[in-house]
Amino acid sequence: MSSERLIYLPLGGAGEIGMNAYVYGYGPEGEERLILVDLGVTFSDMEGSPGVDLIFPDITWLTENKDRLEAVFITHGHEDHIGAVGHYWEKLGVPVYARAFTANLARHKMADRGQPAEEVVTVGPWPDMTGAGPFSVGFLPVSHSIPESAALVIDSPAGRVIHSGDFKLDQTPVVGEPFDPDLWAEVSRDGVKALVCDSTNVFSGYAGRSEASVGPEIEALVKAAPQAVVATTFASNVAWVKTLAEAGERAGRSICLMGRAMRRMIEAAIQEGVLTSFPKVISPEDARAVPRESLMLLVTGSQGERRAASAQLARGKYNGIELQAGDLFLFSSKTIPGNERGVIRIMNQLSEKGVDVVDDSNGHYHVSGHANRPDLERLQDIVNPEMVIPNHGEHRHLREHARISTERGRASVVAVNGTMVDLTAAAPKVCGFVETGRTYLDGATQIGALDGVVRDRIRMALNGHVVVTVILDEEDEPLGEAWCDIKGLPEEGRSRAPLVEVLEEDLSQFLGRAGEKTLRDDDKLEGELRRIARGTCADEIGKKPEVTVVVSRLR
Amino acid sequence: MSSERLIYLPLGGAGEIGMNAYVYGYGPEGEERLILVDLGVTFSDMEGSPGVDLIFPDITWLTENKDRLEAVFITHGHEDHIGAVGHYWEKLGVPVYARAFTANLARHKMADRGQPAEEVVTVGPWPDMTGAGPFSVGFLPVSHSIPESAALVIDSPAGRVIHSGDFKLDQTPVVGEPFDPDLWAEVSRDGVKALVCDSTNVFSGYAGRSEASVGPEIEALVKAAPQAVVATTFASNVAWVKTLAEAGERAGRSICLMGRAMRRMIEAAIQEGVLTSFPKVISPEDARAVPRESLMLLVTGSQGERRAASAQLARGKYNGIELQAGDLFLFSSKTIPGNERGVIRIMNQLSEKGVDVVDDSNGHYHVSGHANRPDLERLQDIVNPEMVIPNHGEHRHLREHARISTERGRASVVAVNGTMVDLTAAAPKVCGFVETGRTYLDGATQIGALDGVVRDRIRMALNGHVVVTVILDEEDEPLGEAWCDIKGLPEEGRSRAPLVEVLEEDLSQFLGRAGEKTLRDDDKLEGELRRIARGTCADEIGKKPEVTVVVSRLR
Repeated sequence: MSSERLIYLPLGGAGEIGMNAYVYGYGPEGEERLILVDLGVTFSDMEGSPGVDLIFPDITWLTENKDRLEAVFITHGHEDHIGAVGHYWEKLGVPVYARAFTANLARHKMADRGQPAEEVVTVGPWPDMTGAGPFSVGFLPVSHSIPESAALVIDSPAGRVIHSGDFKLDQTPVVGEPFDPDLWAEVSRDGVKALVCDSTNVFSGYAGRSEASVGPEIEALVKAAPQAVVATTFASNVAWVKTLAEAGERAGRSICLMGRAMRRMIEAAIQEGVLTSFPKVISPEDARAVPRESLMLLVTGSQGERRAASAQLARGKYNGIELQAGDLFLFSSKTIPGNERGVIRIMNQLSEKGVDVVDDSNGHYHVSGHANRPDLERLQDIVNPEMVIPNHGEHRHLREHARISTERGRASVVAVNGTMVDLTAAAPKVCGFVETGRTYLDGATQIGALDGVVRDRIRMALNGHVVVTVILDEEDEPLGEAWCDIKGLPEEGRSRAPLVEVLEEDLSQFLGRAGEKTLRDDDKLEGELRRIARGTCADEIGKKPEVTVVVSRLR
Repeated sequence: MSSERLIYLPLGGAGEIGMNAYVYGYGPEGEERLILVDLGVTFSDMEGSPGVDLIFPDITWLTENKDRLEAVFITHGHEDHIGAVGHYWEKLGVPVYARAFTANLARHKMADRGQPAEEVVTVGPWPDMTGAGPFSVGFLPVSHSIPESAALVIDSPAGRVIHSGDFKLDQTPVVGEPFDPDLWAEVSRDGVKALVCDSTNVFSGYAGRSEASVGPEIEALVKAAPQAVVATTFASNVAWVKTLAEAGERAGRSICLMGRAMRRMIEAAIQEGVLTSFPKVISPEDARAVPRESLMLLVTGSQGERRAASAQLARGKYNGIELQAGDLFLFSSKTIPGNERGVIRIMNQLSEKGVDVVDDSNGHYHVSGHANRPDLERLQDIVNPEMVIPNHGEHRHLREHARISTERGRASVVAVNGTMVDLTAAAPKVCGFVETGRTYLDGATQIGALDGVVRDRIRMALNGHVVVTVILDEEDEPLGEAWCDIKGLPEEGRSRAPLVEVLEEDLSQFLGRAGEKTLRDDDKLEGELRRIARGTCADEIGKKPEVTVVVSRLR
């Protein structure tokens, strides 16, 4: 026994919020049998990853050790936990376990990528347990913002770990199971070695509200509205969509879902039987015939996404429906940092239409799906683990979560992606580091975050791009002049002549005086032409652009 | 008299926050004599204006009517009010009036752009008045966050307008004059036609705090800190920098300013005599010798700017000083929407160093420079204008400000950039629209926002760039194969062969079968090559890139 150990290794989600992927292992050092908890994605942005479709954790370490991997367990159906299953399954080739609702979403993701959906195995909630090598894993229901969210009870010969997954302590949630403190106490009774725990809201100092408490406030808002009401939130926040729909129904409104993700997610939840009492919804076609004061739309695009329903309604018609002065638009979700500009753009477009916008600056019309700091402390008291390992957070969240844990007398450690932690002893011990990072899904291909592809895109966006073409004849003499094309650069600079002409003049002059040695050497010639093009641009337009030099030789 | 009118025309700052530029005119329709209030800039961002250095209002209308322009008046020294003075003065050629501190900043801006600094005229505060055509303009002191901020009292034969400029109602500010309700009442006693008023904080429902009330809280924070303290805020928020410095001094710390903008702004304020009691500051060299528990740094970079002092301290050493575990870092300013990611990046880097970060989520360590909604209402009550014209705000701010004004029985109108409003009668009347927009300072040149330059940059960033080179001989026959270069695109696609080779193969095949008509026609040939390159990329990598085709003909 003494040579065997229990390890924890985050590959994604620790040191960032997004693309969760956590490895647990048990066995002799370097031969631990492994399981993976969650396999999610992160979304790209113009500033850091322009043009990229999705961001995945780099799971090279796991694929190199896939002979040791037993299974994947998915805690719940949000994209940052499930989104990479279809893309990565082929590299792992092990069964994927999840509860019914989550498993159904995972099967769609497998099918979308041509992977075998039958590798996704539906399992029941605790006390059901699934064996995976030395591990036995149970899905412990917990409240979050999507049905059938679960913490994982991970038993190994070294003891029990509880991996919280995303959660909040809501004893009266609108969908999904309520948090059951007695059940959690029972599961924890015989001792929990480690609580690996969501850190998202560690900086929120007040206890979280229950979803049930918010419905009446929304109902009052909807009732008071003189015309149509539109509310937007994350489609994946099924609980919240239901809260909104029920508030609208109680306010006497017909409910219409708009945006593909919104309809899909709710339909899936109804199909799975996890949303039995969702209000009757009408189609956009029928909605057009409903008097405006009796209509409530629930739409996608709460983060300002340009192609989603909110943005389209703000710009003009969507599904044949157009907003009017006097309508009310409710942003009923948190704006993720970085999305503010897009959200504000929509708010102003709505303002131009005379639509009244209510956002959640007062916190009345939204509850978070994550446990706030007092809730984290409460969970620690219930579970009473030997140690707390913060995950699902940026570095500052992990650090704060570790701090409040040690303040309460529990061992803790800040373990970011790639940090291997030995959980065997009474306190966590960092026992290694593995290479991690991000890979990008870019169109149909995967590219490494450090391949330089995205770096080149950012450089072209910041600096523009000059293409220089030179033809050399059989004797390595320039044939004609240098040609230039520019993209993303002003047409004229300081000399008031076309920039392209000034460039061609300077480059051709250089060609005229260049020696044989330079003209024969591709690298040297390209380097010189690039240097001159950048210098000319610096003089003319005060910028040094990216330069591509194409040297064609006729020999 | 009846054929003369008083007009208001925002060219920037109405429908956005930034690049303020407001025209007033008086005279017969179309022959009004004009004055311009403020001439500011906006900052660019990666999402909408990558690579751009500064954004200016498009003042084409004003330059076309510059024979009617009498003068420019600058309310205060913030970049969004003064930043374009040096760049645009040459196009306007009229005197620039400002109070001493502001005038000094304006002269520097003129000199930086090679313009005649002596065209900036220093004027005293109210009751001094400056004549400008039919107008007489006074600078009415008001509290804001930079010294010598002023509202403008604009008298014309049609009555008095008060243009608030940026302001808050602080009767005990740390720098600058306090708001003096008696003075404002006196100025307004004989009737004010229009209050043209700052709308920035119209959504803040509580009355603003005085700067003086915040110092003690910061002092307590600094006193309790065991190691070095760093605080960052806008350098231009001179009042706030002083509050921080004084709190640090009272807590027994030596104060060191870091970052060029920080030192420059404070030095200018001291020179102008508007910051007489600023604590003694030490140089970064001296700061290195000060015990950490006795040191407080005031640094630039509160918005996460990558090259500013905050970011550099978060990454490593700056001016020979390196932060350590146990140091405290205070973000003491509002994060402007869109800058969150950069700020959070720094917070996490500091967290990795073990530095404790305090931000302003509780509002204890920051006060705004703008009037909140109750303050706006209070000002209306003091001034009692016939009408309120909201400015300095996005559409949603203007609309809300107009709403609360009409609710209080005052005429109002939402007038965004380009909307000409006739203020002559008892209620404002929209009387025309002029073309407005933005121009970009890009390196050394100015480009129009709609020129396509920035659009091309964004497209290259999102889609990558393929360069196709083809040489045709004297008979218009392809000489050799097509060549490709790629930038910002993955090197390999679905077929696992280099993308460049697949492209060259497909393009060369096309050239082999292309008819004489196509080969002779540059446009046709380029169009076909572009189409094929995009199609090949779509097949191989699932993206359609930007394509530049270079056809070289030897004839």
